[in-house]
Amino acid sequence: MRAIRFDKTLWLSTNEPDPIPDSGEALIRLRLAGICHTDLELTRGYMGFAGILGHEFVGELVEDAGEWRASQRVVGEINVACGRCDMCTAGIPSQCRNRSTLGIANYPGTFADKLRLPIRNLYAVPESVPDEAAVFAEPLAAALQVTELTPIRPTDHVIVIGAGKLGLLVAQVLRLTGCDLTVIARQPRPIALLKQWDIPYAQPDGSGYRPTLAHQQADVIVDCTGSAEGFASALELVKPRGTIVLKSTYAKMPQANLTRVVVDEIKIVGSRCGPFAAALRLMEAQLVDTKSIIEQCYSLDDGVAAFEHAAQRGVLKVLLNP
Amino acid sequence: MRAIRFDKTLWLSTNEPDPIPDSGEALIRLRLAGICHTDLELTRGYMGFAGILGHEFVGELVEDAGEWRASQRVVGEINVACGRCDMCTAGIPSQCRNRSTLGIANYPGTFADKLRLPIRNLYAVPESVPDEAAVFAEPLAAALQVTELTPIRPTDHVIVIGAGKLGLLVAQVLRLTGCDLTVIARQPRPIALLKQWDIPYAQPDGSGYRPTLAHQQADVIVDCTGSAEGFASALELVKPRGTIVLKSTYAKMPQANLTRVVVDEIKIVGSRCGPFAAALRLMEAQLVDTKSIIEQCYSLDDGVAAFEHAAQRGVLKVLLNP
Repeated sequence: MRAIRFDKTLWLSTNEPDPIPDSGEALIRLRLAGICHTDLELTRGYMGFAGILGHEFVGELVEDAGEWRASQRVVGEINVACGRCDMCTAGIPSQCRNRSTLGIANYPGTFADKLRLPIRNLYAVPESVPDEAAVFAEPLAAALQVTELTPIRPTDHVIVIGAGKLGLLVAQVLRLTGCDLTVIARQPRPIALLKQWDIPYAQPDGSGYRPTLAHQQADVIVDCTGSAEGFASALELVKPRGTIVLKSTYAKMPQANLTRVVVDEIKIVGSRCGPFAAALRLMEAQLVDTKSIIEQCYSLDDGVAAFEHAAQRGVLKVLLNP
Repeated sequence: MRAIRFDKTLWLSTNEPDPIPDSGEALIRLRLAGICHTDLELTRGYMGFAGILGHEFVGELVEDAGEWRASQRVVGEINVACGRCDMCTAGIPSQCRNRSTLGIANYPGTFADKLRLPIRNLYAVPESVPDEAAVFAEPLAAALQVTELTPIRPTDHVIVIGAGKLGLLVAQVLRLTGCDLTVIARQPRPIALLKQWDIPYAQPDGSGYRPTLAHQQADVIVDCTGSAEGFASALELVKPRGTIVLKSTYAKMPQANLTRVVVDEIKIVGSRCGPFAAALRLMEAQLVDTKSIIEQCYSLDDGVAAFEHAAQRGVLKVLLNP
């Protein structure tokens, strides 16, 4: 089979052996996969990754597996947990101490004709949800982890900093709470989408559409930039006793003004993988527009070109099909 | 009257006019005051402070004020709030947008024969609580702000980093929750007190008394060091989904590894002034040993020498009496 591999360089392998599912695992045929910011980071050396990339996917079962039937469409959680450590037994398998992570750590990824995943990681895709939406299940779940860890009140003033692929999903999830939301955006494509969705936004120069940005006034800031500047802006905008949610990993360590965190009793919350079932419910209810976030779809054969495209500034979701 | 002033240098002023209470304020005669780490920082330039120092005190009313009677013993909250801003009307006057702060910002402090404070800031000291305990009301309230913002479960594994004046109060408050507590301590005096209180402790070299310190295992870390090293240790010891409470201001900005905060979904909470009524309840119930934390008591006349003593490494609470 074909697979997009990274071993110091990114390349298309065309004679990969088919994955052999372990006991408790299903064999899945890829229908569609998505390139994530983390994939780009992995090709820049993050985690010292080597192997088949990819963790966002929708696929179908190649053969019966447990109570699942062949050809069932599925998406899947990316954390392959041990089921025995303190985090697993506390009901938080996404933070398993011994986990492998699909396409990120010690587990071959989804940018391939076929993949394997534990049956317990799978979620059935509702019939009404097309592949082009279902492939967003993983990042939409990650966006929902913001409200999973920091429930938002309808009266909260919330600011999302960064309107990339993930920021646009976070913004749509937050809009559903009824909160007073402003997104800080730079690039023309995201700004056009925010306009289309009627979500208030501000450009860094202060211009924008109904933005409500003021010094130390926001109850919750979600930093989707992964940049030191993003974190500094968050500290500037959050109110006393407010919350900053970190939604991206930071390549460079930001200098955090922890004295303001102490004096103004600010809370900082890291946030990672989220609830798939909730993501699928929002998709089934058509409450999130993922279609508009798609930039382009490439064949696996053109996977290397797809990565180059995805790495360009301001480019939204690049997909891969078999 | 006498007052300890800081105006670029620290000095004893001996012909200060008596304070004139505003409407709604009480005039208070000092009985005992405490020197805090923040006072030392103010004399090193923090906040650009100039004026009469001091915010920890127990005193007695010079004259009737509102419903209070002359000679009533009182302690008092240090934040003088406007009562009108969003933080005040949200019931969080300690975070008032327009606040003055006793002996810290725009309000003369407690290191003086007399002071003034709004009546609404006052708390009556129970008869059974001696001055030597009551003078700890403010820092004990600050210690209780840890559990006010981050409720601790009896099953939690908690580590306090730093066993100075505040760390020793935080440790005693946390012990009352029944949690599995370890304090990281360096100096001989605090270590002797932790032994006396039967609180497990660890020295930085790993030796200690029943310490339970392990990589990424603690549910909650309270950093009472205010040092970059303290924060780095906290990030090393906290478990996934755990909480780091920041209890000291940081002179140097620590380099925070925010990627670990995101990937392991760690929460960081700043914490400042706390609940006086609860502090007085614990004192009345004799559940906190403040007497052992007293290093020495100086007369206001020797206030400058008292500051020099308080600034020495490993020295605990230095008090001032009129």
